[in-house]
Amino acid sequence: MSDPLPSPRMAFTVAYDGTDFQGWQGQPGLRTVQGEIETSMSRIADGVFARVHGSGRTDAGVHARGQVFHVDSPRPAFPPDKWAHALNGTLPPDIRIVEAKAVAPDFHARFDAIGKEYRYFVYNAPVLPPEMRRTRLHLRQPLSLDALREAAEVLLGTHDFKSFSANRGFPETSTVRTLRRLEWQVDGPEFCLRVEADGFLYKMVRQLTGALLRAGRGELSAADLHRMLDQPLRDHRAPTLPPQGLFLWRVMYKED
Amino acid sequence: MSDPLPSPRMAFTVAYDGTDFQGWQGQPGLRTVQGEIETSMSRIADGVFARVHGSGRTDAGVHARGQVFHVDSPRPAFPPDKWAHALNGTLPPDIRIVEAKAVAPDFHARFDAIGKEYRYFVYNAPVLPPEMRRTRLHLRQPLSLDALREAAEVLLGTHDFKSFSANRGFPETSTVRTLRRLEWQVDGPEFCLRVEADGFLYKMVRQLTGALLRAGRGELSAADLHRMLDQPLRDHRAPTLPPQGLFLWRVMYKED
Repeated sequence: MSDPLPSPRMAFTVAYDGTDFQGWQGQPGLRTVQGEIETSMSRIADGVFARVHGSGRTDAGVHARGQVFHVDSPRPAFPPDKWAHALNGTLPPDIRIVEAKAVAPDFHARFDAIGKEYRYFVYNAPVLPPEMRRTRLHLRQPLSLDALREAAEVLLGTHDFKSFSANRGFPETSTVRTLRRLEWQVDGPEFCLRVEADGFLYKMVRQLTGALLRAGRGELSAADLHRMLDQPLRDHRAPTLPPQGLFLWRVMYKED
Repeated sequence: MSDPLPSPRMAFTVAYDGTDFQGWQGQPGLRTVQGEIETSMSRIADGVFARVHGSGRTDAGVHARGQVFHVDSPRPAFPPDKWAHALNGTLPPDIRIVEAKAVAPDFHARFDAIGKEYRYFVYNAPVLPPEMRRTRLHLRQPLSLDALREAAEVLLGTHDFKSFSANRGFPETSTVRTLRRLEWQVDGPEFCLRVEADGFLYKMVRQLTGALLRAGRGELSAADLHRMLDQPLRDHRAPTLPPQGLFLWRVMYKED
């Protein structure tokens, strides 16, 4: 009289080119990353459906190098590395499984995450090489690296980031977050902002990068940024940058 | 009784994402880079057609950062920088004009070229990030950088490259070329071969890179490469790599 065998839980790291997806989250009739993964899994499992749980959503057009999801295997005898192999043979070419492992039955990709890293890529030159148009924001006006870095210093650390988010309708929810890393890396015309935090508000990375880029063009001062942190919603809002420059790079868990 | 005003000749540097083109060369009914440029120019010139002359063809799927073409302006009063601006407003997003200038009336993009640089990009890791699938060759098996560089040393310089070309049907044409540079640059999983020569045989870069990659996997020795140079056609042929890793990077002219 034993319990039925529990479905073994697996965690996958997945990369995707977000260009041709309506984001991560499954929605009927739309092409989404979650939807494609669930379809492929069910094809491998002879029609048995399993719900895929991501670490969080990514918006339409946003890419990932290291999104994480968990799922209870619809074919428990099939080990995670076989799943990875079978999925990469079944998924469309704009989604690739990077890693797969067995996890504890109570592991949760969203609730157990202790942090995330995003990267936003900007190409700062008169002309954008056309093969980069799906993965870079193109900015023609020269950026001052000193100004970009000075502005990043202001936002680093624990602050109320309400001015840098699109979810302004829920006053009961805290908008305080801790930016553990906010760092510009530059290689010629390539600018990359690495942003690591315990968590992110809706559209926070794109608004925060937008504010830093304004600072890098001399349109916002350090004092302006301080005011945006101290007097949320009173001041001018940060622009939301387009999605194609943004990558969910890594999700962090305690055991890593 | 003066001659009619000659159409001023212009030279353009152009970049393209070759993924969705049937190569450079205009062909009726096919989407080609030359065809798109001629269509856009004639739209800007109110229907007046002008023939575009490239420095050479690139095959279907091959990209360019610095292809060069010349054309006699169908609107002589319109200066080259205005043409560049108007073209970038008219061309599809996978073609961008990088530079435009007036040149002497006898300048010829093909016959005046004194050299070209190509780059071939390889991603050497178990999984290819999916946004790179249009611009990288994916190789899972580890490459030895020492072996890649040793093999490049063998091919550098002036040799008969008949074993590294697909145009074997014209024995009267010389297949001797001078490789002025053949250099691997490596950054983590990213391998890039920079190839500079006075000229290239058909599919030469892709076959030459294919041979070097075989050497990098231990499947070809330096002695094998020497034999391919010394006894063309006698030995095993070099594989032609797929086009998506290849970029025409730069065309060189005397005046540069």
